[in-house]
Amino acid sequence: MPTPSDEDVRVSGATVWLTGLPSSGKSTIAQALAERLVDRGHRTQILDGDEMRQRLCADLGFSKEDRQTNVLRIGFVAELLATQGVKVLVPVIAPYAMSRATVRERHAACAAPYLEVHVAAPLEVCAVRDVKGLYAKQAAGLLSGLTGVDDPYEVPESPDLRLHTHELTIEGSVDAVWALLVERGLA
Amino acid sequence: MPTPSDEDVRVSGATVWLTGLPSSGKSTIAQALAERLVDRGHRTQILDGDEMRQRLCADLGFSKEDRQTNVLRIGFVAELLATQGVKVLVPVIAPYAMSRATVRERHAACAAPYLEVHVAAPLEVCAVRDVKGLYAKQAAGLLSGLTGVDDPYEVPESPDLRLHTHELTIEGSVDAVWALLVERGLA
Repeated sequence: MPTPSDEDVRVSGATVWLTGLPSSGKSTIAQALAERLVDRGHRTQILDGDEMRQRLCADLGFSKEDRQTNVLRIGFVAELLATQGVKVLVPVIAPYAMSRATVRERHAACAAPYLEVHVAAPLEVCAVRDVKGLYAKQAAGLLSGLTGVDDPYEVPESPDLRLHTHELTIEGSVDAVWALLVERGLA
Repeated sequence: MPTPSDEDVRVSGATVWLTGLPSSGKSTIAQALAERLVDRGHRTQILDGDEMRQRLCADLGFSKEDRQTNVLRIGFVAELLATQGVKVLVPVIAPYAMSRATVRERHAACAAPYLEVHVAAPLEVCAVRDVKGLYAKQAAGLLSGLTGVDDPYEVPESPDLRLHTHELTIEGSVDAVWALLVERGLA
């Protein structure tokens, strides 16, 4: 197979879905990865979970059905952008295997590359980081339905990449995703 | 002001919202315009109203509030694509001035060019064309809330372009939108 040219890899869209528990590092990695992609001339879009809930999914709560619908809508937007040559980074929990599989299938149906990255910091580490204070609130009884604690997180069985972020620097995590993009002819 | 190069105009994103009554010609013009844009090397995306309702807005009906939410969600997706250099064509009724204005403002806030094209075939003409059979169903009492008949359509007061599609060929309509794109440095 011929090596793709710099031009080819820059104009090829793809979705990189960063799935994992709250505070596992999804958004941090997406930010750092986006910077590197932009630096190298890739059009890049982060689909931030909170912004998506506000502008695309304000009707949805956190039931199983609503979480699945949330993922499918974001997946649809990712698909549109990826087919237009954008590197789309999606740091969104996506707790259910079925909705993740559906998003992957729909990307395949429109020939948009799709990479599932499991951001796999253990629950104990995430609960200590607790970036948004969610674990503390749940422990204090102020919140329920927290993914990984009292709501399901179905661990990806065969992601394209599993990042043990508690053992990696941010740079190390980005390097690992980058290596995957290169391997797939996308960077 | 220097003339934009071919490369500039091709990589500049923009949203062209085609607002108008059912059967006014929105989708037909969007299709023909998309073909011309693709021919000239522009990345182009049509956000089809029916597909958006299915994949992004399945929860929404046709109340005033739901119609506005529908337009805002589609507007958000258009904005994401337009800021990534895509020509986004949106053949969606968008009956309320307020939601159209909001979409325009949000595009302005992220510096994405936004053009409102009023596809202005008169109601009598649209009702005869009746591409989807909606006018007939409404007349037969099988459907209510049809825009322009028993549901409001707020005519755009100052669109970027008003197309009297009943007096124009498809080609003529596309030429008029194209001229506007050229005038704005977008084609």
